[in-house]
Amino acid sequence: MPKVTFLPANSTIEIPQDENLLKAAMQIGVHVNASCGGAGVCNKCRIFVESGEVKGEELPDGGWKACATFPLTDCTVRVPVESEMDRKALARPGASKPVSWISTHGASVKWRLHPAVSKIKLNLPEPSLQDHESDLSRLRRELGQGPLQGISFDVDSQVLYTLPDALRTSGWEVTASIMEGKRAEVRRLIRVEPGDRLSHHLAIAFDIGTTTVSAQLLDLTSEKIVDERSNYNPQVSYGEDVISRMEFAKSGDGLLVLQEKIASCLNGLINELLDANSVSSDDLSLITIAANTVMTHFLLGLETRFLRAQPYVPVASRFMPVRAAEFGIKVPEHVRIFLAPCVASYVGGDIVAGVVGVGLNHQPELTLFIDIGTNGEIVLGNQDWMACAACSAGPAFEGGGIKHGMRATTGAVEVVHIHPETFEPMVLTIGGKKAKGICGSGIISLLAGLFTSGALDQQGKFKRDLGSDRIRPGSDGYEYVVVEKASSATGQDIVFTEADVENLIRAKGAMFAGYLTLLESVGMGIEDLDRVILAGNFGSYLDLDQAITIGLLPDLPREKFYFAGNSSLIGARAAAFSLHAFAEMNEVSKMMTHFDLSDNPQFMDHYVSCLFLPHTDRNLFPSVEFAGA
Amino acid sequence: MPKVTFLPANSTIEIPQDENLLKAAMQIGVHVNASCGGAGVCNKCRIFVESGEVKGEELPDGGWKACATFPLTDCTVRVPVESEMDRKALARPGASKPVSWISTHGASVKWRLHPAVSKIKLNLPEPSLQDHESDLSRLRRELGQGPLQGISFDVDSQVLYTLPDALRTSGWEVTASIMEGKRAEVRRLIRVEPGDRLSHHLAIAFDIGTTTVSAQLLDLTSEKIVDERSNYNPQVSYGEDVISRMEFAKSGDGLLVLQEKIASCLNGLINELLDANSVSSDDLSLITIAANTVMTHFLLGLETRFLRAQPYVPVASRFMPVRAAEFGIKVPEHVRIFLAPCVASYVGGDIVAGVVGVGLNHQPELTLFIDIGTNGEIVLGNQDWMACAACSAGPAFEGGGIKHGMRATTGAVEVVHIHPETFEPMVLTIGGKKAKGICGSGIISLLAGLFTSGALDQQGKFKRDLGSDRIRPGSDGYEYVVVEKASSATGQDIVFTEADVENLIRAKGAMFAGYLTLLESVGMGIEDLDRVILAGNFGSYLDLDQAITIGLLPDLPREKFYFAGNSSLIGARAAAFSLHAFAEMNEVSKMMTHFDLSDNPQFMDHYVSCLFLPHTDRNLFPSVEFAGA
Repeated sequence: MPKVTFLPANSTIEIPQDENLLKAAMQIGVHVNASCGGAGVCNKCRIFVESGEVKGEELPDGGWKACATFPLTDCTVRVPVESEMDRKALARPGASKPVSWISTHGASVKWRLHPAVSKIKLNLPEPSLQDHESDLSRLRRELGQGPLQGISFDVDSQVLYTLPDALRTSGWEVTASIMEGKRAEVRRLIRVEPGDRLSHHLAIAFDIGTTTVSAQLLDLTSEKIVDERSNYNPQVSYGEDVISRMEFAKSGDGLLVLQEKIASCLNGLINELLDANSVSSDDLSLITIAANTVMTHFLLGLETRFLRAQPYVPVASRFMPVRAAEFGIKVPEHVRIFLAPCVASYVGGDIVAGVVGVGLNHQPELTLFIDIGTNGEIVLGNQDWMACAACSAGPAFEGGGIKHGMRATTGAVEVVHIHPETFEPMVLTIGGKKAKGICGSGIISLLAGLFTSGALDQQGKFKRDLGSDRIRPGSDGYEYVVVEKASSATGQDIVFTEADVENLIRAKGAMFAGYLTLLESVGMGIEDLDRVILAGNFGSYLDLDQAITIGLLPDLPREKFYFAGNSSLIGARAAAFSLHAFAEMNEVSKMMTHFDLSDNPQFMDHYVSCLFLPHTDRNLFPSVEFAGA
Repeated sequence: MPKVTFLPANSTIEIPQDENLLKAAMQIGVHVNASCGGAGVCNKCRIFVESGEVKGEELPDGGWKACATFPLTDCTVRVPVESEMDRKALARPGASKPVSWISTHGASVKWRLHPAVSKIKLNLPEPSLQDHESDLSRLRRELGQGPLQGISFDVDSQVLYTLPDALRTSGWEVTASIMEGKRAEVRRLIRVEPGDRLSHHLAIAFDIGTTTVSAQLLDLTSEKIVDERSNYNPQVSYGEDVISRMEFAKSGDGLLVLQEKIASCLNGLINELLDANSVSSDDLSLITIAANTVMTHFLLGLETRFLRAQPYVPVASRFMPVRAAEFGIKVPEHVRIFLAPCVASYVGGDIVAGVVGVGLNHQPELTLFIDIGTNGEIVLGNQDWMACAACSAGPAFEGGGIKHGMRATTGAVEVVHIHPETFEPMVLTIGGKKAKGICGSGIISLLAGLFTSGALDQQGKFKRDLGSDRIRPGSDGYEYVVVEKASSATGQDIVFTEADVENLIRAKGAMFAGYLTLLESVGMGIEDLDRVILAGNFGSYLDLDQAITIGLLPDLPREKFYFAGNSSLIGARAAAFSLHAFAEMNEVSKMMTHFDLSDNPQFMDHYVSCLFLPHTDRNLFPSVEFAGA
């Protein structure tokens, strides 16, 4: 890979030949003004090549557009004076990313391959006048003499309808599927297929999020992930968040509509996975699903009226395996859904699955497990105890309630750096397309950048006297122009307002107050944390320094942070591969002490102190330096 | 009650004032010629009143029609010479009836009241922000602190759909229904009703016969039979016997049709029982059903192709409780059917239920349990061991395959006495109506009477030289005219043919060969039997002497015979009242050694010897005297 040295900072980075120089500069912490996000329209990201060869778009004055220029050899480039910052500003290192938990620790928690459904091949003796037991008794006898010796089991009545033909079309060779329940002593014959079907033994693991549904097709014999897919949760049409969907569920057949929507979404993903891998739903042995409490209720079509209103009571938090077909999932009748258990209305099966997925319940280290999604759930604990809470953080960090907030798709501003003197931004968009809005990571980096550069004060108000055109009064109070309309995809200025900042401060304040409340409940403080695990895709692109700067994450040594990716799906997958992982979810759901923060005076106190950047108590954030300090 | 003395026999009997003198004569063993069955049309049953007062139909010659004459006071009547027999013929005592097993022994086997479903009333604490467990966890907690302490249980997912409202509409007072399975450690919450519903706890027990379906409505709290109903099995339209129905089931949607027919029959009986007693299907907690193997398969819609053909393999013989609603039974979803287990293709749940119903499995006495129905099943054994067999006796004793055979309904010839010199019959019909045909008891009494009077020889052939107009050549060989067309309801002679006799000899021969085969298999003989229990309604009207005379029953002291009535229904009822009785059925079904007689050389040998009246070996029937002896 070519090495690129940026002058005058004299910072060098190795990048692939297909990576543009603007991204390289952002990675290494070199500021280059760039307003259009890399779409090549603003012409602000001009640089000069001093040595080496590049290809890309050269400008009339001999400069090159950094967002459209790629290195062919090692090269040295100079950032012009309008982008340049003084040495102090350049002290900012490259983005500090959390480390992947799974790649570093994934193998440390490993359950024995032991799916809840196992397949057993049998060769039965053909009946005769001397041995004319019923088909079922014959099968029971063989199972009892072999793999299920001394183990009694129940039988799904559905089995009886296919049993006579299954036995007789394959010369009395069949494959039986046995399901184990929570209690090891209770087993159930759920299926009998003709012939040897041992190698047709698949599962699908789902994570049903409020916004996104992810699925993995799993081979239960080889313990391999065959394929994965995801899609938006179609319930979004009936409300962005769980509260509005529960309101919708109260009216008419709203609940039914939501149930059907999620079922059809799962059906779509199942079909995609099956078709793409040339397998059939007949090959499916089970389904596992991790979802938050509200999504779990919707999937099962359970009443959410009492979940919606104080004191927020779910119908149930732990579930027996249910037949998928009864809920509109188009799979054979024997396929059961194993649902991750929930803890409370707003700490659901996704969190429980995530905790088990990362193996928190196996580790002595004191861990803070954070899922900053639509809601914001936190778990504090280790193998011996766990406390959990939902923070009502709201979807601000997903772009919800932010004037130009949007999901992390093409055209979303994903990284911003603010020049500390000129307040000019260096903007990168997803896909290098014209900016349509700002996604979560862009929001954090904007907020952190504006604060660090001194454009925002601790209360989250823009300073009025900075002499930058980019900071101006707008319809929602003062605002910062991230992308001018000339460079945006919308033809409108893309702005970041004081109202947005206020929302974000409330959201991060709720999270941080949650950490402090849980820690306080066990007589501990931030400094006692051995590690922080960030769940969800959020964590994978998070710049730790920025997130700490705005007070969203605690100011701990950066090596204590990990991102887990979709830990909920990891947990669901573990439960598909191993009943032991599923059993652990039930244990974890029982061992978690749930704190209802909505009713907690300590939380309210902390929350008020958290409504500053990064916090009222500067001592909590020793590593954060900013212009206003 | 008036006393009636018949001359010249000088036999006296007390009868109610509404009993006619023909029936009185039959009861006391006095022969009066009577051809029309009591319909008052043949004018043959003339008697003369010598003292006392009667009311009824007087004839022109001063005689009275016995079939239409009733005693007002004690009276003496004379049977005229044309009816009169010599003293020897009059030695025949009144009908020897078996004793009711239930009225003599019913109380000796008594299970503790313990239905498979029990109801528990609970008052739950209302949720609060401090106690916001899920509805289900709250219920579980209360059950766990109270009646189900230390007992884990599963939950029907259906419960979750009514639970939130059930809890909240009744101030958190609810009644929970808990079902116990075969294994005591596995329980299941199947229902939660608002309020106190302890007293609404009913069951329905069914006996599904090939011909008749009987039902009892039971109160599971008071252990009372509330009401009962029965109806013909509507599957009769698709075949009188199980073989023809299984043939029908093979074609198109035949099996489905049969399933729907029986379901609608059960629905009809359920509705009748509920309506007549002003209760609702919501009050039902469970259903128990005893049925033969084929009827059980039809009810569940199970394949009978392999049951039909050698080696006669059922799909299953023991069944998990199934949801009634899944089989088209219109009851709430929580209602399970507990099905009596079967032993083999032709020894079904009706026999197992019957054996448990009479408590055979609790008694040290060696018992022969006989069900002479469409098929003919026998059980030999006691509390320690049991052997069973089906005899393929066919429905001859129910009137099937008999030229003028019919079911025991109005107009059926039910008792016949044959004058030993004139061979004139004394006929009684059900309801005293003109004869339409001959039912089971009439068939036995005809066969016994014709044999005892010497009209039939040991091979079952009519003697040709008796000089009676009633014995004549007919289309099916020789025949005996039971009722002349002038007196019959059909306008045809009602006859009893040599072909009929041959069928009956085959049928009774199959039964008796079955007794001998089972006895021989354990090295025993007829003389070792402590008792004989006759199952089915058949036994209640059976004349033991007649049945022994034709070789249908073994020649044992008459006090060893009992009739049990519908023992299958008794067993189904016991299973509804007590899980212990149901568990015993499973034990009995497992302890029974089944003999397939169709493949048994001993049986064939015995069968050949049994094709005589009463048997080749006269020593087996010491008490039987007959004209040919």
